Amino acid sequence: MTHQQIVLASRPSGEPTVENFRLVEGPVPAASSLADGQVLVQHHFLSLDPYMRGRMNDGRSYAQPQPLDAVMIGGTAGVVLASRHPAFAEGDAVVGMGGWQTHAVVDVSAPGVLRKVDTSAIPLSAYLGAVGMPGVTAWMGLTQILEPQAGQTLLVSAASGAVGSMVGQLARQRGCRVVGVAGGAAKCAHVTDVMQFDACIDYKAHATPAALLQAVQAAAPLGVDMYFDNVGGAVLDAAMAAMNDHGRIAVCGMIAGYNGEPMPMAHPMLILQRRLKIQGFIVSERMDLWPAALKELGTGVARGTLKYHETVAQGLAAAPEAFLGLLKGRNLGKQLVKLV
Amino acid sequence: MTHQQIVLASRPSGEPTVENFRLVEGPVPAASSLADGQVLVQHHFLSLDPYMRGRMNDGRSYAQPQPLDAVMIGGTAGVVLASRHPAFAEGDAVVGMGGWQTHAVVDVSAPGVLRKVDTSAIPLSAYLGAVGMPGVTAWMGLTQILEPQAGQTLLVSAASGAVGSMVGQLARQRGCRVVGVAGGAAKCAHVTDVMQFDACIDYKAHATPAALLQAVQAAAPLGVDMYFDNVGGAVLDAAMAAMNDHGRIAVCGMIAGYNGEPMPMAHPMLILQRRLKIQGFIVSERMDLWPAALKELGTGVARGTLKYHETVAQGLAAAPEAFLGLLKGRNLGKQLVKLV
Repeated sequence: MTHQQIVLASRPSGEPTVENFRLVEGPVPAASSLADGQVLVQHHFLSLDPYMRGRMNDGRSYAQPQPLDAVMIGGTAGVVLASRHPAFAEGDAVVGMGGWQTHAVVDVSAPGVLRKVDTSAIPLSAYLGAVGMPGVTAWMGLTQILEPQAGQTLLVSAASGAVGSMVGQLARQRGCRVVGVAGGAAKCAHVTDVMQFDACIDYKAHATPAALLQAVQAAAPLGVDMYFDNVGGAVLDAAMAAMNDHGRIAVCGMIAGYNGEPMPMAHPMLILQRRLKIQGFIVSERMDLWPAALKELGTGVARGTLKYHETVAQGLAAAPEAFLGLLKGRNLGKQLVKLV
Repeated sequence: MTHQQIVLASRPSGEPTVENFRLVEGPVPAASSLADGQVLVQHHFLSLDPYMRGRMNDGRSYAQPQPLDAVMIGGTAGVVLASRHPAFAEGDAVVGMGGWQTHAVVDVSAPGVLRKVDTSAIPLSAYLGAVGMPGVTAWMGLTQILEPQAGQTLLVSAASGAVGSMVGQLARQRGCRVVGVAGGAAKCAHVTDVMQFDACIDYKAHATPAALLQAVQAAAPLGVDMYFDNVGGAVLDAAMAAMNDHGRIAVCGMIAGYNGEPMPMAHPMLILQRRLKIQGFIVSERMDLWPAALKELGTGVARGTLKYHETVAQGLAAAPEAFLGLLKGRNLGKQLVKLV
């Protein structure tokens, strides 16, 4: 057994490629080498998420840039191989931010870096998706910014993704009409048939701003009251144009602009004319809200009232290609890499 | 004495002109013609405000379009000439929405259409500015959206105007550093010298986006935490680019786009990257907040701790030209028309 790691080899200029990553191999850290307070974890799953694209860039954003030649940051779920901390024992299922690697030595003296999870009713991988950061992101944007009210209409982009599919389900459970936007007929079918959205718009089938707006208006005949934005660009413009007075927009991602191309908002005047609220957020800034979110998400997943879907790549070496696919929307649901 | 009225003769296509207005004359309504519950008011002052530009357009906005051939809507301050309502007596000073005309017959049975004001410590005209709608607008955007905190920096555009000058003063009284943006050296001098802002940027002297941003950054060395937007366009873009994480933007006006020219927001990605909140509002939707606002504004004006400035045009016939001047920023402070 070797210890595999993927490091950031270079920063992308424009669209990232597999050349920006490098696989490094070495011996697995020995249990005997652990210091007091350290835990050796074998990762079973690595989470791939759009925010990682931002970290690959240099320059100011909400997160520090990923250092070059360091292991790519990332959420992980695994099992404890050896422990020198009383709170963790061999065999414990744990989630943390172990990064793009097969194993990690974690100093667990800092609170929250490693969390034990119960896999009796919830599969380990779900703690990286529906019952993890993406699920909490959906919950937070919905409950803290969008202020859902029964009978109102919510629009969400990247609706077949880990975040988007959960936004819609949580809003629907609150009595909202839920409309998704996704790329392609297969994703849209998944969104309506599996995730039980009221409607889903295939943005690839509506390539002009006017066509997209018309599709949104047709799917939201009473207008859009809330928009959960994962993509920015044309979908944001269409959502704003279809919005009712006092509409709310939670900005969670703007994947359309991650490669640095200009991406203006067409009609900011609508913010005034319709008294809109637009707010950006990141899930890690409100750790105080995670327990309430995880409680609702975990209960829903365990009972089967919240659905999720996973796309799983096999082996760490497949991570870069899977990540680039995620950025291009090739995955359905949560993109994972299975390491064991 | 004649009854003069100005009606909307035609809708502007692009920039409005005096041709869009028409002066109509007739006899002053007779006191004997009043029905029960009606009051005859002689207007002493007419308020001119940027929102009127939006009403001149057809199409969806936050207000109904101004009907053609009807008296232009507008705030007025005047004196009761005759009353058939027990709450009003001849000689009472009153403010209302009497429109662009010298006299109005007001049915005061609907609450709030006419309000008696005390002119012992506050001049009548101030009830159309600092202690009226513009003052409440400033107060509302500041307290309800911008959440001012001592030590933070507030930027406000149209800083020499009725709203902008009050925003800055109210923020400064809350311990904020206050930076204005205005057009021309004379206005900037007024903003810093009379209104006591910490700094003011002459946008006309910084004609490129890069120069404007540099000026904002120089005037706000710790970054911008709050932006009160009266203009949209390039100033909004610069404010966003200079903003700190968790910055707040209250959108009160976007005068740069009122004539229908495209006015995109350059970098909406900043909403995500810096977790900004952007919110549009109009003052008439929160009538519940007016008493608290008017209390602070009235106290400050009466004590002289809140300053204001007026630009006064003479006679109703001068109103269209004065209004067009307001849209072009030719006024300093509150633009009024004196009718008596």
